[in-house]
Amino acid sequence: MTAAAPGGAGTPRRRGRPARTDADSGPGARERILTAARAEFAARGYDRASIRAIAKGAGVDPALVHHYYGPKEQIFAAAIETDFAPAREAPEIIQAGGPDTLGERLTRFILGVWENPATREQLLAIVRSAVANETAAAVFRDLVTSRLMTRVAGELDVPDAELRSELAAAHLVGVAMLRYVIKVEPLASADVEQVVAMVAPAVQRHLAGDAYA
Amino acid sequence: MTAAAPGGAGTPRRRGRPARTDADSGPGARERILTAARAEFAARGYDRASIRAIAKGAGVDPALVHHYYGPKEQIFAAAIETDFAPAREAPEIIQAGGPDTLGERLTRFILGVWENPATREQLLAIVRSAVANETAAAVFRDLVTSRLMTRVAGELDVPDAELRSELAAAHLVGVAMLRYVIKVEPLASADVEQVVAMVAPAVQRHLAGDAYA
Repeated sequence: MTAAAPGGAGTPRRRGRPARTDADSGPGARERILTAARAEFAARGYDRASIRAIAKGAGVDPALVHHYYGPKEQIFAAAIETDFAPAREAPEIIQAGGPDTLGERLTRFILGVWENPATREQLLAIVRSAVANETAAAVFRDLVTSRLMTRVAGELDVPDAELRSELAAAHLVGVAMLRYVIKVEPLASADVEQVVAMVAPAVQRHLAGDAYA
Repeated sequence: MTAAAPGGAGTPRRRGRPARTDADSGPGARERILTAARAEFAARGYDRASIRAIAKGAGVDPALVHHYYGPKEQIFAAAIETDFAPAREAPEIIQAGGPDTLGERLTRFILGVWENPATREQLLAIVRSAVANETAAAVFRDLVTSRLMTRVAGELDVPDAELRSELAAAHLVGVAMLRYVIKVEPLASADVEQVVAMVAPAVQRHLAGDAYA
């Protein structure tokens, strides 16, 4: 995809290189684009988000968006990597104790992220895009795999460590869907510590329990 | 809410009353509307689906859509009730054996519905709408609660039966999300019987295991 270059005030127009304008030349253009991209993906989802709207939100030329971040799926990757910031704490959580309490630490951590309305909205926006669009799903999958799954699996000394860590994650994803997205009662209103107490043992068994029957 | 009545063949057209056309008068209009509604919701999601497009798809006047099904959320409820047809088998599955094997029966049944590409697409369309829109989520929640949750809970002789059955369902929802929607590997390619063998014990413990710690 070749981005069309805008002509600058006194600059001769050249293909593939965005001309600088006052707004573009600020050192914050890259940050503004990312902020605008996160807002656009959150509001409209991956499918309907447009580079043009992101550029408009950031006050830059669309070609500059492409220049800094590449095609739409790469902008999306950068946006969800930022939104997925809580995942950066994951390695710390994972290594904060032994494997015997990993299930409880992970359960409390993931539910905590969803309990916070700000991070919940960001996660929900990512889930919406991933459920609606295969490319968005692939971007999200790569992020979750590299940031969470392989790290959790790396802590486990069991056969099928990857599959086990995915089943543990699946349980947490499903609890988040029913409690925070679909809001099924009584789960949606249950005390979060009660939910942790009921879910953590199942997560722990997936991670480090005896071999399955 | 008053539904507009369709006018008869010789009736002059009045505001709020759809005139009858040949297409309207066929006994299949109701069915055609439902079919068109399912297609429209699947293709565009709850948010973007329009009564007008449903009417066009069915070859009827928009007022007839409202006459038969009421407002958009009720059309959606009728559409997903049809798409959710596999859930009609649920009572049979639930009662096909004792509580000791309920986890395994439910796990095999739900994964089986997702394994089938036709029913998978229908479920995925419903999930997309429910994740994107609160009204759609509420309609879906009511259906799942009445068709599945309360029936499963009714089989259990444990405290917190509803919460337990929701946590069991949450596990299955999460496995479906990671395996069929996000397609995380190795879970996405694992043999379905291996997944059943690994997930069913956790589902069973939620349904009928000892009290949580």
